[in-house]
Amino acid sequence: MPTNNKLKIFNDPIYGFITIPNSLIFDIIQHKYFQRLRRISQMGLSYLVYPGAHHTRFHHALGCMHLMQKAVNVLRFKGVTISNDEENGLLLAILLHDIGHGPFSHAMEHSIVNDVSHEEISLRFMEELNVEFNGSLTLAISIFKGEYPRQFMCELISSQLDMDRADYLKRDSFYTGVAEGNINSERLITMLNVVDDQLLVEEKGILSVEKFLIARRFMYWQVYMHKTGVVAEQLLMGVLKRAKELVQQGVKLNCSDALFYFLFSEINGESFTNETLMVFSKLDDYDIVAALKEWKNHNDFVLSSLCQMILDRNLLKVKLKNKAIKASDLKEHSEEIIKKYNISKHEASFFVFHGELTNQAYQNKFQKINILFKSGKIKDIVKASDQLNLKALSKPITKYYMCYPKKKM
Amino acid sequence: MPTNNKLKIFNDPIYGFITIPNSLIFDIIQHKYFQRLRRISQMGLSYLVYPGAHHTRFHHALGCMHLMQKAVNVLRFKGVTISNDEENGLLLAILLHDIGHGPFSHAMEHSIVNDVSHEEISLRFMEELNVEFNGSLTLAISIFKGEYPRQFMCELISSQLDMDRADYLKRDSFYTGVAEGNINSERLITMLNVVDDQLLVEEKGILSVEKFLIARRFMYWQVYMHKTGVVAEQLLMGVLKRAKELVQQGVKLNCSDALFYFLFSEINGESFTNETLMVFSKLDDYDIVAALKEWKNHNDFVLSSLCQMILDRNLLKVKLKNKAIKASDLKEHSEEIIKKYNISKHEASFFVFHGELTNQAYQNKFQKINILFKSGKIKDIVKASDQLNLKALSKPITKYYMCYPKKKM
Amino acid sequence: MPTNNKLKIFNDPIYGFITIPNSLIFDIIQHKYFQRLRRISQMGLSYLVYPGAHHTRFHHALGCMHLMQKAVNVLRFKGVTISNDEENGLLLAILLHDIGHGPFSHAMEHSIVNDVSHEEISLRFMEELNVEFNGSLTLAISIFKGEYPRQFMCELISSQLDMDRADYLKRDSFYTGVAEGNINSERLITMLNVVDDQLLVEEKGILSVEKFLIARRFMYWQVYMHKTGVVAEQLLMGVLKRAKELVQQGVKLNCSDALFYFLFSEINGESFTNETLMVFSKLDDYDIVAALKEWKNHNDFVLSSLCQMILDRNLLKVKLKNKAIKASDLKEHSEEIIKKYNISKHEASFFVFHGELTNQAYQNKFQKINILFKSGKIKDIVKASDQLNLKALSKPITKYYMCYPKKKM
Amino acid sequence: MPTNNKLKIFNDPIYGFITIPNSLIFDIIQHKYFQRLRRISQMGLSYLVYPGAHHTRFHHALGCMHLMQKAVNVLRFKGVTISNDEENGLLLAILLHDIGHGPFSHAMEHSIVNDVSHEEISLRFMEELNVEFNGSLTLAISIFKGEYPRQFMCELISSQLDMDRADYLKRDSFYTGVAEGNINSERLITMLNVVDDQLLVEEKGILSVEKFLIARRFMYWQVYMHKTGVVAEQLLMGVLKRAKELVQQGVKLNCSDALFYFLFSEINGESFTNETLMVFSKLDDYDIVAALKEWKNHNDFVLSSLCQMILDRNLLKVKLKNKAIKASDLKEHSEEIIKKYNISKHEASFFVFHGELTNQAYQNKFQKINILFKSGKIKDIVKASDQLNLKALSKPITKYYMCYPKKKM
Repeated sequence: MPTNNKLKIFNDPIYGFITIPNSLIFDIIQHKYFQRLRRISQMGLSYLVYPGAHHTRFHHALGCMHLMQKAVNVLRFKGVTISNDEENGLLLAILLHDIGHGPFSHAMEHSIVNDVSHEEISLRFMEELNVEFNGSLTLAISIFKGEYPRQFMCELISSQLDMDRADYLKRDSFYTGVAEGNINSERLITMLNVVDDQLLVEEKGILSVEKFLIARRFMYWQVYMHKTGVVAEQLLMGVLKRAKELVQQGVKLNCSDALFYFLFSEINGESFTNETLMVFSKLDDYDIVAALKEWKNHNDFVLSSLCQMILDRNLLKVKLKNKAIKASDLKEHSEEIIKKYNISKHEASFFVFHGELTNQAYQNKFQKINILFKSGKIKDIVKASDQLNLKALSKPITKYYMCYPKKKM
Repeated sequence: MPTNNKLKIFNDPIYGFITIPNSLIFDIIQHKYFQRLRRISQMGLSYLVYPGAHHTRFHHALGCMHLMQKAVNVLRFKGVTISNDEENGLLLAILLHDIGHGPFSHAMEHSIVNDVSHEEISLRFMEELNVEFNGSLTLAISIFKGEYPRQFMCELISSQLDMDRADYLKRDSFYTGVAEGNINSERLITMLNVVDDQLLVEEKGILSVEKFLIARRFMYWQVYMHKTGVVAEQLLMGVLKRAKELVQQGVKLNCSDALFYFLFSEINGESFTNETLMVFSKLDDYDIVAALKEWKNHNDFVLSSLCQMILDRNLLKVKLKNKAIKASDLKEHSEEIIKKYNISKHEASFFVFHGELTNQAYQNKFQKINILFKSGKIKDIVKASDQLNLKALSKPITKYYMCYPKKKM
Repeated sequence: MPTNNKLKIFNDPIYGFITIPNSLIFDIIQHKYFQRLRRISQMGLSYLVYPGAHHTRFHHALGCMHLMQKAVNVLRFKGVTISNDEENGLLLAILLHDIGHGPFSHAMEHSIVNDVSHEEISLRFMEELNVEFNGSLTLAISIFKGEYPRQFMCELISSQLDMDRADYLKRDSFYTGVAEGNINSERLITMLNVVDDQLLVEEKGILSVEKFLIARRFMYWQVYMHKTGVVAEQLLMGVLKRAKELVQQGVKLNCSDALFYFLFSEINGESFTNETLMVFSKLDDYDIVAALKEWKNHNDFVLSSLCQMILDRNLLKVKLKNKAIKASDLKEHSEEIIKKYNISKHEASFFVFHGELTNQAYQNKFQKINILFKSGKIKDIVKASDQLNLKALSKPITKYYMCYPKKKM
Repeated sequence: MPTNNKLKIFNDPIYGFITIPNSLIFDIIQHKYFQRLRRISQMGLSYLVYPGAHHTRFHHALGCMHLMQKAVNVLRFKGVTISNDEENGLLLAILLHDIGHGPFSHAMEHSIVNDVSHEEISLRFMEELNVEFNGSLTLAISIFKGEYPRQFMCELISSQLDMDRADYLKRDSFYTGVAEGNINSERLITMLNVVDDQLLVEEKGILSVEKFLIARRFMYWQVYMHKTGVVAEQLLMGVLKRAKELVQQGVKLNCSDALFYFLFSEINGESFTNETLMVFSKLDDYDIVAALKEWKNHNDFVLSSLCQMILDRNLLKVKLKNKAIKASDLKEHSEEIIKKYNISKHEASFFVFHGELTNQAYQNKFQKINILFKSGKIKDIVKASDQLNLKALSKPITKYYMCYPKKKM
């Protein structure tokens, strides 16, 4: 990193260069809480399907900040007043919006802790950093919590057109090589505007918004909900669940202290103390994979089998259906392995199970995407786009999957 | 071009390299009929909107041939038998499918000749070349005409998933810089298969087909039907129409002999003789632009004004509406310029006019895109895709435009 | 183009979007002198070798302006003071630096006029526009002429690291598909700095500068001096030379008035009046190609043959050598066509000729590239780069070519 | 992964799609030895400098195989006979050439084992797999060992123009975002030819070879030898060295069994038994990072400090010089920390040290790159390239670095 009188930059394969605008942001990036994001993969186990998808939360956070810089420039150009403090708040809020992610990002969001979202943990980290940095994150926190009075700023952090999505769709598309998910973030940002403190897209951006929603839907089904990725994630959740069972039965399991903390105690919103936060800050993908490698040789059949499956990418069979799956469809598979491996019904449930996947490309209930017409009128995208039936995209789609072992487990 | 024992290649910014597979195809490319395509721009006057869009029919034709090579490889890999003669026929047919385009491609398709499509003229050229090349294009012609018994081969040349579209969407997106229109041609081709001589897309390609249809629609409205491009095209058609009027009134107009031929005689399907073909083969973008530059100083007010507008990109105002435009909406504009320039009502109609644009992203009536399910079932994409309401894309969309002079014409 | 309160942007396949910063620059771009650049190809006849190379001076000029905006931002970030007027001057100067190019850019620079460089003509146009725009180009002109006291500004317009090269190398590499010529303009610009009003590259940019010089050399030999491109250019110069001979002998030649003006009168620096400038402003690629098409059927054997060769890309044979070519090497070829076509020795010289090509990747004599070390020391790149022997790049390289007809001319 | 009658493909952001040509290769890829490469990063700790550089040996190996497929096609097109068995041998040899890499690739090549190269370990793995796959790797092994009589095949695996370099330069450039290192692998491969069983580049590829050597040199200094990357790597080697010291003194260190095996026993070529290979096959990046995280809290000052530095990217200061560094230059730094932390001179040497970096862009001694001229002559690239002084690239360049703690360690 260059010294103070120099341009501080990161190379980015997507945007070319990412510039660090000031020393506060530089110091935040250098902080160990933020450096930890280098060890949290952005897309969980998706690299088992898309071998290029090893990018991290660290890189994504920098990318979001870069796009936020662009958005601020575009809006100022259009006459929207944004003070330097507000700009800094926006940059910090987006930089830190994901700092609360645990190992493998979403994959384990509900296995490590119970009912504590990564956003809540992000907030905890931000408050902690605010103390350490003498209150310089106060405005950022207000924006992040959605409490800042100028609503469009909160929308730049979290809405259907926030800088988070603008980066991750582009980045995930880039690293997976799934070109169909590529979105033109720059064009979208160029089309942003603000009326009555509300973030809007100008009329000529209608097609781009449609394209963005379609690309998101594409990535959703082709990548994020790819059936092989889904089964890998389920297996990983199975590992954690089984490990907790064993630990709580008093079975000895080797793993890092931080991981053991979360296996041993069921942490939820109330029991998530400052101590918990400190332990959480030590947890990343490496604790999990190291545990998988250790437990692969454990004498618990379920635990060791699950670990081996993930590590050697020798996963369960998975079928995707448009109709709900009945337990009876799986009965045969379940009975087969109970008999074959002499295991209990409960144990079999780690290998034979079903579930559902839901996606709604456009969430029109809570957060609309509003279009600003030249005439000054404002309409929801679903109404503004008269050609493409976007209503279809507002309907949640559900798919159903079932998993069971291959012949040779 | 390297000699015979070498790999003959063209650099292509999109695919890297395009390889010329044999000397017959090489000789066809060297032929003056094909070289003429270097002087026909792919996207007409779109470069007035997208300054990068100067690519030519020549380059597009090579790109199509390149994709056809890929398609043949994929299908053979999947066990579809394609003989070497058939492969050659496919390559020639796609290489020459657009050889009948006149100046500015589609822009003037109906101004130069009456009711003779570029496909018919392509066929005339192919027949001419077939004589010159001793019948080696016979199979290609049969495929091009859709008469070859193995229907999927005809579909590779002309259908909703033909190699023509697979190249032009990608190429036009690339050269305009409109990233949203970029399609993953390679993935689409990888998903092709053949059942009962019918071209199909495998089930796992459903999302890609949807994406392709959406991208096509995007390009349609954002690029091909961009209102500035539309008005430029209308002005160009106005120039030709006015020039014909003047020539037929005996007014002297300087232009190339080839262009004069088509201004002087109204050519239609019946009067399109072999002589016509020879004159047509001499006509390209340069005849038109040279005429615009000459006529810019002609003393006919209408003609000179239209030419100046195009050359200096000082176009008419254009408004796009979702509802039909009434003649009365334009009356005021018309009267204004009649009075201001002391011109007739007919003359004013070159500057004040309205029209409509129609697009149907998916033409389900004549040519379906069929999806092959793992189960062996075959379904139309509209039914196969249950999430996205593709029916909406099958509905033709009409928009209405009106044009009239700026204050300072 | 959007109206005033909107962001005015151009799509660019290379940089994404190019923003027009103010209405003066917008009006200059709209001016017919600047719009004419849409009809001047950037790379002359290179598209006969690289079919994608149809981009224009218009697009290049916009690209340069875009990079200049980046350079201004970087330098200001580093504490270099640049006033708003100076910024505007820089943007206008680079936007207009090539406005004096004639048809086919360099190809015909010395065939249309004698000893009047395109830079001189650019200056004439700028002065003309300065009158029309009430003196708002005065500062730009001063920078363009190299007279502005803050020398680094002149260097941003014209030096070995100017924004012109930074754009054209990248752009030409992009459109030809010759990836080896791609340079990282953004990184280079990020490394710029100013000391004592002198443009410098910071120490950590040494490798990038080397890379830039090597890429330039690569493009030079692989693209700009490609032997097929060279022979095409020579043929085009032959056409003009022959046409002048014929016109001056009183032979009738059809072509545009503007072209005829330059064929009939030998224009040099002194005879280049304001009238000449007005005629020049009407001349572009289309006058030339239209003439080629007309003259292809002229009864002068030399003229018609040369035109046909270019139009049908049926060029002369060309050999490239490292040693000088002796006239005697060509004697046999010359005698053969004199006899075969019954033409004079002078006429044969249009088909059988030789010449030389020279390139010096790094011109250390007049304009150095200086490197600023962290210690504050400044060194010429040749001395700063101790690994790569850049002295070798400072040595002019000469190659020799000879051209003569194929068996079947 | 699709079943047998389908095209098996991997998405790759660089080449689009990578096709798995047959089921033997598919089974090798599925093998746990090969799957382990998913957990070995290609560029070690370079991601601390280039945040995008998280790609793995797994992906690189697939990329190499893809390029080998292209090379085989090009050579066959030019008339070089390559049997199907030989093709398979080439694909397997390149796929497995790096399977012997340990954690963090090169970074720890000499810390885990002593004087056993990754190539030797790759060979051990290949022999092991050959047993398991009933001898189907015999030909591949012969090629890999350089013993196969058709020498050009060995050169495709290991030489200055092998498919390994053709992929890794491109891939590393892509993931770091250092565009200057991008090479046109496809063009280079297109230029390959074979004469007398020797791999050559055709004359027209001279510039591309030069470009390739320059890009390699660029990547070397800008990326592989980036000073921050170098210091991180040295710290990692320090961690292993210190850990071995402690383990051998009987200090308890928690880590995976596999890592402990290599800490406890000094393994060299002779003591590398089959058991060693089995343990080695369990070792990857995750064992190391998990250990760093564990040891960060160890009570050995040296070990814990080193681990913390890497994990929090709070590295030593590093200076790069062109002249050799004298021990005396570091004395002051050394004394300072000895006093400050009350540590021994030996312990201080983990924080204050110097070293050197050497690179030779073109290794002309052992393996030349030969150019095939049209005349049939063959010349070494250094002689064939008369413009660029490639001799300079043949000279090994040495740089010297020194490291010492920041004020606040």
